[in-house]
Amino acid sequence: MAKVGVLGAGSWGTALALLLRENGSEVTVWSINEDEVKMLSEQREHVQKLPGVKIPEDIRFTSDAKETVEDKDFLVMAVPSVFTRSTSKLIAPYVKEGQIIVDVAKGIEETSLKTLSAQIEDEIPQADVAVLSGPSHAEEVGRGLPTIVVIGSSKKETAIYLQKEFMNKVFRVYTSSDVLGIELGGALKNVIALAAGIADGMGYGDNTKAALITRGIAEISRLGIAMGGRAETFNGLTGIGDLIVTCASVHSRNRKAGYLMGQGKTMQEAMDEVQMVVEGVYSTKAAVALGKKYGVSLPIIEEVNSVLFEDKSPKQAVNDLMLREERPEHIAMEWES
Amino acid sequence: MAKVGVLGAGSWGTALALLLRENGSEVTVWSINEDEVKMLSEQREHVQKLPGVKIPEDIRFTSDAKETVEDKDFLVMAVPSVFTRSTSKLIAPYVKEGQIIVDVAKGIEETSLKTLSAQIEDEIPQADVAVLSGPSHAEEVGRGLPTIVVIGSSKKETAIYLQKEFMNKVFRVYTSSDVLGIELGGALKNVIALAAGIADGMGYGDNTKAALITRGIAEISRLGIAMGGRAETFNGLTGIGDLIVTCASVHSRNRKAGYLMGQGKTMQEAMDEVQMVVEGVYSTKAAVALGKKYGVSLPIIEEVNSVLFEDKSPKQAVNDLMLREERPEHIAMEWES
Repeated sequence: MAKVGVLGAGSWGTALALLLRENGSEVTVWSINEDEVKMLSEQREHVQKLPGVKIPEDIRFTSDAKETVEDKDFLVMAVPSVFTRSTSKLIAPYVKEGQIIVDVAKGIEETSLKTLSAQIEDEIPQADVAVLSGPSHAEEVGRGLPTIVVIGSSKKETAIYLQKEFMNKVFRVYTSSDVLGIELGGALKNVIALAAGIADGMGYGDNTKAALITRGIAEISRLGIAMGGRAETFNGLTGIGDLIVTCASVHSRNRKAGYLMGQGKTMQEAMDEVQMVVEGVYSTKAAVALGKKYGVSLPIIEEVNSVLFEDKSPKQAVNDLMLREERPEHIAMEWES
Repeated sequence: MAKVGVLGAGSWGTALALLLRENGSEVTVWSINEDEVKMLSEQREHVQKLPGVKIPEDIRFTSDAKETVEDKDFLVMAVPSVFTRSTSKLIAPYVKEGQIIVDVAKGIEETSLKTLSAQIEDEIPQADVAVLSGPSHAEEVGRGLPTIVVIGSSKKETAIYLQKEFMNKVFRVYTSSDVLGIELGGALKNVIALAAGIADGMGYGDNTKAALITRGIAEISRLGIAMGGRAETFNGLTGIGDLIVTCASVHSRNRKAGYLMGQGKTMQEAMDEVQMVVEGVYSTKAAVALGKKYGVSLPIIEEVNSVLFEDKSPKQAVNDLMLREERPEHIAMEWES
């Protein structure tokens, strides 16, 4: 029986706490918000974030970081991406040499352009950092619907250990050595989700959306490979798989914000209506910066950037994408001779 | 101005005839069904198959194969896959040396396990056979919604010629040299669409469907590469792109038949309710046969086969897929050492 500390009591942290407890782990969940800790300890349901899913009495909630981290076989980092670095700083003093931390959030830091695992490693160099990603709405995992994800680690034994801890008959886990590719796919997908939302908002159909998803992952893949990720990863569960689930979802804030822009709202109006800052807006800036840094052409992402920050009309953006120079689908597969 | 003969007056043949005419071609459309020819010539709308889309007077309809083929710059083969060989036999005497035929249907012949272009080449060895594929519901192309497809040909000049003829501001065309990969992706996707429909019918969510699509294209890709197709093609518009659009569609007969089976109906009951033979049923047989022939493991396709032909319950099939041996996502990306 593993002892696990989960940092972050949002929908994903809570769903994974339930999964690990179901698999036999002893689980402690930390939140920085004392009211949330009190509410969860008493009500045993996260009414706002995971409604209808009962939380058993033997999952402990606390706002004490030390208690959450010490003597745990591994930690799950499930805080929103913007809090990854600060939370890592907070827990660093309690993390032992080689203690495993699985990051389950997605994002790229705007200033440093670093992925979340790199931020954790900056702040907690003694940790053994892994990632978990894939097409996995927390609501569906909470309800026990079949889900397949990937655990990435630079160490084979860490990946296999975590695979055994997380896997069960409704939650299949593959392993991978490509941590960077997994994280880039997860972070950059939100730009394409914005694009898919814009297309939906403009009244375009399934053909347009499928083309955006397919050519979108091709862009992410080109950038990710230039940065050191693997092509297979972008074509797998944490790349195209996660992108499909995000673009299909009526719950995705990124898709929703895009939808409103496709209907003619400005970025600010869309953000106000979604009532939240949308991750994809940050990711678009990061992706454009990374494209420049690594010299990779990103036509869809650049059009999304123009719609977000340069007042370009979505109609003109689609037009410019459709009428780009005629070319082969895959440059590397040109005819011989 | 190109002269084009379109063989087959279904939804796809009609939509492409309209597109080519819009691009400036002179278009003749053939159907074996004289009543259909009369109806289309008079009503100028395909009420059953492409409702609401007006067909201009300058598109000619005929049941005369010779007239459709002779003196045409290229032909579009848009008959249902089961009629590809017989239609090829019918027009063979009129096809000139080097005349271009673009096949736009998808399928594999049950007896020979040959793709459609191979069947056309069997019957019309003098033709220059190309293919057009990608995420493209005919209904949406008919309505002018943005769509992106791929033209495949073994000859670069044929691919580029056809790209220019088909491309316009709502229909973007890429070229590819991988004709076999394009055709295999298009034919085998229907097996995964059946699986996605089954999952939907069982009440599973977006996580399950995205995982089936992603692991499904991985299977198709393994088989296709063993047969001589290219990995890039299966990860492109005619592979994953077409699979996404089919699995998302409420119109797909394959998805619908799967949905009914997921709700507990037998294959026969599902076929009776859909009122049509479902292409994915043939494709499943063909895929299993090809997997054996090329020694490729196809776990999802084999479970679909068991549900279709061996009375296996969908629930048991999902269970068996989820609890397969723990493994890495991509075998070729194992850790070093």
